[in-house]
Amino acid sequence: MSEKPVCLVLGAGAGIGGTVGKKFAAEGYHAVLARRSDEEGLNRMVGDIEAAGGSATGRLVNAVAENAIEDLVAEIERDIGPIKTVVFNLGAQIGNRPLEATEPKMFQLGWQMATFGLFRVARAVIPLMVERGGGSILVTSATAAVRGNTGQHSHAAAMGGRRMLCQTLNAEFASKGVHVAHILIDGAVDAPDTLGKLMGPERFQELREQRGLEHDGLLLPEKVAETYYHVAHQHRSAWTHELDLRAFSDLAWWNHPIKI
Amino acid sequence: MSEKPVCLVLGAGAGIGGTVGKKFAAEGYHAVLARRSDEEGLNRMVGDIEAAGGSATGRLVNAVAENAIEDLVAEIERDIGPIKTVVFNLGAQIGNRPLEATEPKMFQLGWQMATFGLFRVARAVIPLMVERGGGSILVTSATAAVRGNTGQHSHAAAMGGRRMLCQTLNAEFASKGVHVAHILIDGAVDAPDTLGKLMGPERFQELREQRGLEHDGLLLPEKVAETYYHVAHQHRSAWTHELDLRAFSDLAWWNHPIKI
Amino acid sequence: MSEKPVCLVLGAGAGIGGTVGKKFAAEGYHAVLARRSDEEGLNRMVGDIEAAGGSATGRLVNAVAENAIEDLVAEIERDIGPIKTVVFNLGAQIGNRPLEATEPKMFQLGWQMATFGLFRVARAVIPLMVERGGGSILVTSATAAVRGNTGQHSHAAAMGGRRMLCQTLNAEFASKGVHVAHILIDGAVDAPDTLGKLMGPERFQELREQRGLEHDGLLLPEKVAETYYHVAHQHRSAWTHELDLRAFSDLAWWNHPIKI
Amino acid sequence: MSEKPVCLVLGAGAGIGGTVGKKFAAEGYHAVLARRSDEEGLNRMVGDIEAAGGSATGRLVNAVAENAIEDLVAEIERDIGPIKTVVFNLGAQIGNRPLEATEPKMFQLGWQMATFGLFRVARAVIPLMVERGGGSILVTSATAAVRGNTGQHSHAAAMGGRRMLCQTLNAEFASKGVHVAHILIDGAVDAPDTLGKLMGPERFQELREQRGLEHDGLLLPEKVAETYYHVAHQHRSAWTHELDLRAFSDLAWWNHPIKI
Repeated sequence: MSEKPVCLVLGAGAGIGGTVGKKFAAEGYHAVLARRSDEEGLNRMVGDIEAAGGSATGRLVNAVAENAIEDLVAEIERDIGPIKTVVFNLGAQIGNRPLEATEPKMFQLGWQMATFGLFRVARAVIPLMVERGGGSILVTSATAAVRGNTGQHSHAAAMGGRRMLCQTLNAEFASKGVHVAHILIDGAVDAPDTLGKLMGPERFQELREQRGLEHDGLLLPEKVAETYYHVAHQHRSAWTHELDLRAFSDLAWWNHPIKI
Repeated sequence: MSEKPVCLVLGAGAGIGGTVGKKFAAEGYHAVLARRSDEEGLNRMVGDIEAAGGSATGRLVNAVAENAIEDLVAEIERDIGPIKTVVFNLGAQIGNRPLEATEPKMFQLGWQMATFGLFRVARAVIPLMVERGGGSILVTSATAAVRGNTGQHSHAAAMGGRRMLCQTLNAEFASKGVHVAHILIDGAVDAPDTLGKLMGPERFQELREQRGLEHDGLLLPEKVAETYYHVAHQHRSAWTHELDLRAFSDLAWWNHPIKI
Repeated sequence: MSEKPVCLVLGAGAGIGGTVGKKFAAEGYHAVLARRSDEEGLNRMVGDIEAAGGSATGRLVNAVAENAIEDLVAEIERDIGPIKTVVFNLGAQIGNRPLEATEPKMFQLGWQMATFGLFRVARAVIPLMVERGGGSILVTSATAAVRGNTGQHSHAAAMGGRRMLCQTLNAEFASKGVHVAHILIDGAVDAPDTLGKLMGPERFQELREQRGLEHDGLLLPEKVAETYYHVAHQHRSAWTHELDLRAFSDLAWWNHPIKI
Repeated sequence: MSEKPVCLVLGAGAGIGGTVGKKFAAEGYHAVLARRSDEEGLNRMVGDIEAAGGSATGRLVNAVAENAIEDLVAEIERDIGPIKTVVFNLGAQIGNRPLEATEPKMFQLGWQMATFGLFRVARAVIPLMVERGGGSILVTSATAAVRGNTGQHSHAAAMGGRRMLCQTLNAEFASKGVHVAHILIDGAVDAPDTLGKLMGPERFQELREQRGLEHDGLLLPEKVAETYYHVAHQHRSAWTHELDLRAFSDLAWWNHPIKI
């Protein structure tokens, strides 16, 4: 059993998820990094954390499988220690596609990961947090949670539902010490695992160079992680439920080039 | 085959759904009223429409069953006529209940009806509407689409996802002539089938009397139907995507008694 | 004194304001059309209404002058008849300009027209409406009421304040029978007096042709007027507080070309 | 001239404003504390900061007086040092009052402080920040910025306008290094200068005891200040434009007791 508080990251890729895990590990948490695939990448992240003097555990988990999330929570609580923070970083990003190319199975998969996944982890972990007097769930969200664009049938529906679920969870559990934060990532993240794969390596590199400036025209995961850590440690007299994050060089989602 | 344009109502209970169907029938549409149960009530609605000189068809349909919505659309298009308007009135209201009493199956059912159901009918009917140059989908929504309250885990997640789906559909299809309207019903409806059942007949009657005034302290379905009909017939140069409806005597969802 | 109910239009230009006035006149109201300048244009509008069998009065009014709005309301109530509907159509559109080119006087002028003007007419007319048991105020609003874009310092601040004022007025007076509707015009209006002047005649004509389709790629004032009239006549059991209007061919303000 | 970066607090009362000033001073800023009245209280705050090893300047300023804000900025830049952060904490809270008791002068005063005041300080300081490559403006906001309640005619209109102004400023200046953060304080603050005066000492003490818990059922200014400081120091690749803060024991503004 770890003496440290545990931070469970669901969706611990090389972008925001893994980087937030590293930050929490650097600050004294035991990080449990869970992701669906890429055992090698996962081991490297665990190794990096340990090399820096931190402690971490890696788990390959298919979050949509029955009981996978519930079992993971139970196992951590039994074998590693009480979960103090969950970083919910499962995406529903299947790439923009028109309605007719969005198969019902895809639509459902987006919901299973992004909405149902949060419900399941909340249901498994919140009663334990309440019993222990507190805990936090940091939910990585996307602009699609607040407006639906062309081609985002699955993504927007999943993310929009998730935001309302966050509000419901806070309404029910904030007064019992559980803090749920909806963190809207409004822009492109410098993340090879997600954006890099979506765009392909060449276009991704092009984007990095074009947004480059001093390499901060994209959201840098290690800077994003600073705010995650801050929010998880806000005093309970001053909790943030919703916030947005974007690069200074980006327009907010509510701005766009003048129509006329 | 009907000479009339067809209005398909999914969720044609004795409240908003059935009443909007009656309004469209009264204005010259053939109304197809679909609901899950209560054949007697369904037949009575069809009979009322016919007695008033209109035309209607009733269908008992379990909307979450595989292909049920898709088959219904295909059947109507083949046997009755082209669907011009869909009134999507399927609710996800399972009554407020705390997280631990919200079984995963319930959470999923809310989504299947309120979010996935809209996706499925949109996918079935929009390509036909685009081909014909136009059509409209009127989506009955709830306050839970814009904020999650205690006990609304399933309902809010389903409704919030649905609102984002409506925005996605408009972004993709408005310019092709398909008008999706998200109609937020922000208050109690004078509807024996839903609110009446939820509250029980006695408390419902009490509420009616208390809100009574001239019987309009609750949302009256026949008055709500006026606005549904107006929105479906807005000229395409001036379409409403989102609007709210509430009784004059009610506070809007964003107002509440001063905290201090 | 008129036997007819009175509809007062503040900002009765050749776009939405005047056209809504015409619609109300055509439906049996006496329209009082108030605008700052262009007596000839004003007389033409009154003449058109009378030629069509309606009745109307024109007034040149500088709405920001002290007591101008208050005196106009008092005069109408004394000489013409009780005001049943106010169409508040005063804009704060001074054209986009950077912060350093936005003089404090301009910033203030935007507020005086768009925010303070509504406050003043509300304060003058609502007590009379409450005494008579009802009335409505239809507020023409802009996308700037819900998000601030580059160059809109004055416009967005004025419109955003106005929207909150509408919510306050409804919270305080809806239960007393006064219905305030915030109508967000989200797109370019086919209006020579405002957009035409802003763009200049040539670019305006270009825009009309480009959006042309069947001349409805811009918001057509006479179609917008249909919805104004509908909202003003909603039964009090089903009032809309906020709605948006845009051409089918336009993206909603929350949509924009994908960033990446 | 100070070697330290300067943090200018407009509205430096004993609640959020002064406490945020103290926090910045403790972290190495020179704090300039400006408030309208209570020289004694102001001197005490400056003394406290100096006693703790920090540096600060106090100024009594009537922010609505012509050129008061502009002159203050010029004086600081000339005599003390370049302003790196502005904390804009001027309120428009005149207490809830019905429309008829809201004199036009009061309505205007709310706007002059809360909206025009921000415009003026932005216009004075942003060009300097742009020239220096960066700076931040932290705007204390209220729930009235996102919804208008009964009795908040002046307050809501002023705050709603202010939020849109913040968005406009970010849209125009974020890419030039100026970060504007709209911080929605959604709940009662443990602040004797504002809430204490509004409620009277007895009712305020009652509220503190009732919300007491471990004295954190109200927003504690020193905890709020932690987040202000964090936001002002976010790396420019990950800026927050809008966030909310409330005590864990409070419901969010979008939640309220179920209507039925």
